[in-house]
Amino acid sequence: MSAQKVTIIGAGSIVFSLGLVKDICLTEGLSGSQVCFMDIHAGRLEVIHKLAVRYAEDLGADLLFERTLDREGSLQDADFVVNTATISHNEYRMRDVRQLAAKHGYFYGRTGMPEYYNLRLMLDVAAICPDAWIIQAGNPVFAGTTLMHRETGVKVCGLCHGHYGYYGLARTIGVDPDEVTWQAPGLNHNIWLTHFYHNGQDLYPRIDEWIANEAEAYWKEKGAAGGIPAQMSPAAIHQYKMFGLMPIGDTPRSGGWWYHTDLDTRIRWYGGPGGGGDTPKGRDRIIAGKEERYKEMVKAATEDGVRPIELFGSTKTREQHVPIIDGLVNDNEGWFQVNVPNMGALPGLPDDVAVEVPAVVNKKGIQPLRVEPLPAKVMLERIYPTWLSMERNLEAFHSGDTSMLLYGILESHQTKSYDQAVELLEALMAMPKTEPMAYVKDMNEHFSYPDHW
Amino acid sequence: MSAQKVTIIGAGSIVFSLGLVKDICLTEGLSGSQVCFMDIHAGRLEVIHKLAVRYAEDLGADLLFERTLDREGSLQDADFVVNTATISHNEYRMRDVRQLAAKHGYFYGRTGMPEYYNLRLMLDVAAICPDAWIIQAGNPVFAGTTLMHRETGVKVCGLCHGHYGYYGLARTIGVDPDEVTWQAPGLNHNIWLTHFYHNGQDLYPRIDEWIANEAEAYWKEKGAAGGIPAQMSPAAIHQYKMFGLMPIGDTPRSGGWWYHTDLDTRIRWYGGPGGGGDTPKGRDRIIAGKEERYKEMVKAATEDGVRPIELFGSTKTREQHVPIIDGLVNDNEGWFQVNVPNMGALPGLPDDVAVEVPAVVNKKGIQPLRVEPLPAKVMLERIYPTWLSMERNLEAFHSGDTSMLLYGILESHQTKSYDQAVELLEALMAMPKTEPMAYVKDMNEHFSYPDHW
Repeated sequence: MSAQKVTIIGAGSIVFSLGLVKDICLTEGLSGSQVCFMDIHAGRLEVIHKLAVRYAEDLGADLLFERTLDREGSLQDADFVVNTATISHNEYRMRDVRQLAAKHGYFYGRTGMPEYYNLRLMLDVAAICPDAWIIQAGNPVFAGTTLMHRETGVKVCGLCHGHYGYYGLARTIGVDPDEVTWQAPGLNHNIWLTHFYHNGQDLYPRIDEWIANEAEAYWKEKGAAGGIPAQMSPAAIHQYKMFGLMPIGDTPRSGGWWYHTDLDTRIRWYGGPGGGGDTPKGRDRIIAGKEERYKEMVKAATEDGVRPIELFGSTKTREQHVPIIDGLVNDNEGWFQVNVPNMGALPGLPDDVAVEVPAVVNKKGIQPLRVEPLPAKVMLERIYPTWLSMERNLEAFHSGDTSMLLYGILESHQTKSYDQAVELLEALMAMPKTEPMAYVKDMNEHFSYPDHW
Repeated sequence: MSAQKVTIIGAGSIVFSLGLVKDICLTEGLSGSQVCFMDIHAGRLEVIHKLAVRYAEDLGADLLFERTLDREGSLQDADFVVNTATISHNEYRMRDVRQLAAKHGYFYGRTGMPEYYNLRLMLDVAAICPDAWIIQAGNPVFAGTTLMHRETGVKVCGLCHGHYGYYGLARTIGVDPDEVTWQAPGLNHNIWLTHFYHNGQDLYPRIDEWIANEAEAYWKEKGAAGGIPAQMSPAAIHQYKMFGLMPIGDTPRSGGWWYHTDLDTRIRWYGGPGGGGDTPKGRDRIIAGKEERYKEMVKAATEDGVRPIELFGSTKTREQHVPIIDGLVNDNEGWFQVNVPNMGALPGLPDDVAVEVPAVVNKKGIQPLRVEPLPAKVMLERIYPTWLSMERNLEAFHSGDTSMLLYGILESHQTKSYDQAVELLEALMAMPKTEPMAYVKDMNEHFSYPDHW
């Protein structure tokens, strides 16, 4: 048992912070630790701080909570930094981008525009705390984890919950998810089910049976009941046919431009109303849900007689962040799905690219399994193109070369002409700045066309 | 001086064979050699054979000419095999493919369909003569050279004349092409001018001046005079801006989907009437020219009083095939632009990928220069995507997996929907077979969808 300093960057992402607080409260080995909430919003910081204090009271946990607007200060002496902050993946900003892109002929913001602000933010954070463990929760996990590793050499582990997609898959084909042996390596949001067993029996034939005999009825039923989970959607099954392995979690949500060209196409591949949060209306529902949840939290933080434990329970979440800290600090060993520099874990990719692989975590560190090579088809059609796109993003980030942003947009299959790409790029660069952007280098300052343009 | 057996596969490609014959006749060190013409067309074989005999008489060369319909026999004891044969790149077949693709909404046959027949042909040839040097002249040089090297370990060198694009570039900016020092490595049809000097002075600033002050007038003048050479087209200059180096030869003819979406777009980027042979009408003119040329050859081969030397001259061509043979056999050293297995010549690509690089050729072999790395932008935006596409082509070829053909079509930026891709694929697979296809394994036999499709 060893007291730690855990700093949460972007702690105003309250849904996320709440889960972390609960998990830390419920982890004995972290008793006595200090949790530092950092955000740029004083109001939201106050809510999470009050909520955390009350929650720790409810759960009888011995923790010290701090809050600060000072990023640099919050990172001093941090043992762990959970970076959940986002600038460009903010729901409202993304909605504005989608609406602007729609005017230029792009459905659901699939513009190909390379990431800038969130990468800058991640790098700025990592540069301040070279001795901490960074647990990266904000997107893009793949590019960000790779970038932080390359640029700072900090210990970094990107996390996502997409791999839990195997749960829904198992349940749907009639198997208890807690009894399966599975593996799904790849890149973040691009992972593929290489192993899937129950009592030593390969479950792939069972998936094939389900597709042949049950899928149609399932899609009809789920469609009528509000929506088909992406994990079991026609798109997911089609990707299994195309690429030879089941895509897991967030993977079937992308998987090829041809599933996403417009709403009708989305409905064809994901069922009505077009697949969870990946349509304009679906996303609006998610935003409304988050806002509703925030109101509840404010209540639990501030109203007399409303206790967090009543609203949010007293069992751990399924998130991996705190159990990984517990493993590293207290040798409380566990298996996790992590995004870490490859170093040979996934054959066919360079050492310094972040791969998503299973890892055992204990006092010795985060130790990835060296998995078997993915099939050539998956590598050539899914993994390498995504890797290459990420490398272009990082090179654009480094070089500050505007023409690489333009190239990214031209690579979007939704781009129909050169002029359309130029116009979209200019429109995106001219969008009003949001508040968090003031805290990092401005995109328009960083990027310019090459001299000979 | 050492007599060789040089076999020309696809010798009925008479324009090409004529140049080879002339060059061999004019190469003293190959005196006494045997030239074996192989083709599946007896009529065309007879023409080239007669023409060769007459040409050797005209030039006073001591050579033995043979002709045969027997591929295997022609390759026995060959020291050099010049493979110019084509099945799928036949002008008439390509025209049929373009016309069919146009019905499915594709401009100028940019379907993304992976290559099959020519690769099969190259591999079949290489497998028969593992001890010969294969000089690969037929396309696709990049995929084919890589494939033959990987599968057979034969000594193989792919050749193209695209690199001579630097000639036109030098002339246009007012420099004698014979006085420049240049280098343009990359992949076949994807090479980039890394060095360009005249009397020790970098010529890139001169290119920039030309673009700023002379390009517009040049484009107007050339456009009015029948067409702008691709090497100096607005598309080429735009690629220089986008990627940072001048694209050379065949490179500016591709360079990004956005230059090629339809005829108007071609005219915008390549000038009227849309850029050389890369439009339906432009290609028709090339075909007509080839037919005209063939008639002349028949004359020179068969009519009394018409001598080859009068029609086709007595100076060597600029092609590299025979000088390379001369270098290897007679130590008559020279520098060439070759496509050979990388083995470290071009940093950032695997050893077993064919790269196009400068090489010194002499008795010791074809020895590529280890060139400096290309700029990150060129690698990430031009070289790696083409490499990846080639690897997918070879994997499709190996696996016989129809879904990889479909993926190739889906990757074409001209594909607008999944159904369009499926329909085009089915239409392409259902095209009537051409005569040369009877000599290799049928595509419809080789390819099938995976079991779980």
